[in-house]
Amino acid sequence: MVSSKTEGTMGAFSDDISVSTKGFGDVVDITPDVQEVVGRSGIKSGIACVAAPGSTAGITTIEFEDGAVRDLKEALDRLAPMKQHYHHDARWGDGNGFAHVRSALLGASRSFPVQHGRLVLGTWQQVVLIDFDNRPRDRRIVVQVVGD
Amino acid sequence: MVSSKTEGTMGAFSDDISVSTKGFGDVVDITPDVQEVVGRSGIKSGIACVAAPGSTAGITTIEFEDGAVRDLKEALDRLAPMKQHYHHDARWGDGNGFAHVRSALLGASRSFPVQHGRLVLGTWQQVVLIDFDNRPRDRRIVVQVVGD
Amino acid sequence: MVSSKTEGTMGAFSDDISVSTKGFGDVVDITPDVQEVVGRSGIKSGIACVAAPGSTAGITTIEFEDGAVRDLKEALDRLAPMKQHYHHDARWGDGNGFAHVRSALLGASRSFPVQHGRLVLGTWQQVVLIDFDNRPRDRRIVVQVVGD
Repeated sequence: MVSSKTEGTMGAFSDDISVSTKGFGDVVDITPDVQEVVGRSGIKSGIACVAAPGSTAGITTIEFEDGAVRDLKEALDRLAPMKQHYHHDARWGDGNGFAHVRSALLGASRSFPVQHGRLVLGTWQQVVLIDFDNRPRDRRIVVQVVGD
Repeated sequence: MVSSKTEGTMGAFSDDISVSTKGFGDVVDITPDVQEVVGRSGIKSGIACVAAPGSTAGITTIEFEDGAVRDLKEALDRLAPMKQHYHHDARWGDGNGFAHVRSALLGASRSFPVQHGRLVLGTWQQVVLIDFDNRPRDRRIVVQVVGD
Repeated sequence: MVSSKTEGTMGAFSDDISVSTKGFGDVVDITPDVQEVVGRSGIKSGIACVAAPGSTAGITTIEFEDGAVRDLKEALDRLAPMKQHYHHDARWGDGNGFAHVRSALLGASRSFPVQHGRLVLGTWQQVVLIDFDNRPRDRRIVVQVVGD
């Protein structure tokens, strides 16, 4: 699939998505919302950057089915267990040190190719927001698209 | 190294790379193929997004030599061991739950700066596809370049 | 926050940042320097790719305060302990096998949305370079911005 270089119709577009989460590692499929923004951008070929501004959330992709999602949560619990001493908590008392570590390890933004006006994803691959914080949150997700 | 902002010659370009893998964490150096697409794009300054569409592969960079590659494989085995119970497998019986977890943790796409018509990488840094699936696969890698 | 698609003023811009590190997992807040390059680009809406060329460093975001930074370092020590056998070291004798593994797991580049001429980040979220190498290093960080 080749889209040859085009010139003169390039543009940039962004919009936000609002997502309510349960926190505590809640994994939310945001693929339809991201695709909607990409479609609305009018950009057919380019790059989309999906970001969860903040230091206690992550963006990645997974086959969004209960089993794999549970497996991922358990792996993140091993990486940075909730019940462990965190220097962040000792200092600030907000009890979400594990959330900061998980977000830094997973990353709070990820970019994807856009072709034919859509994110390029596998059939069973979804873009997910993971909210690592220790309380429900209303999250703002930024989708920024650049291309032509 | 400064490339001042230029206007009016911006473009977007993408092409695919086909890669046959052995699965089971096979690490494949795709740097020459990615550089070839970037060169062919005609884009001198911009961003290249390299993606492995799907939920059982990853894209990252490493010094591609046998020792470091083996070390990375062992670290991934500790992160999400093959011989462990996975809810994904219990539910779907495809036995590749570890592959889904590893892909979600590592990420299936990564972006790089493009300068002078080439990816900006360190001397000993290669772009690699890691195929976490539990069988050989023919993978399609998407390289999307945006810039001028 | 919507920035509608604009056409004809698109551009690409890049510049480097020089950072001296202590190595051994030193975490350096590079946010002001990255924002400075983004501001100087004149690009108001787009994507910025921040990269640490090389195979022993990483780029991510975290709330840059001593506690969280120490927590992240300890998590990386668990992921790829310094005191462990590495095939890379056995082969090349440079003793930084752990640094290669950590860089491959965390990623040496990350992209962010740009809005109103600035990286979109949370209030407590900073962009950091982590130098995993086993000695002080002078690092070159590349900031590449594309947009309009």
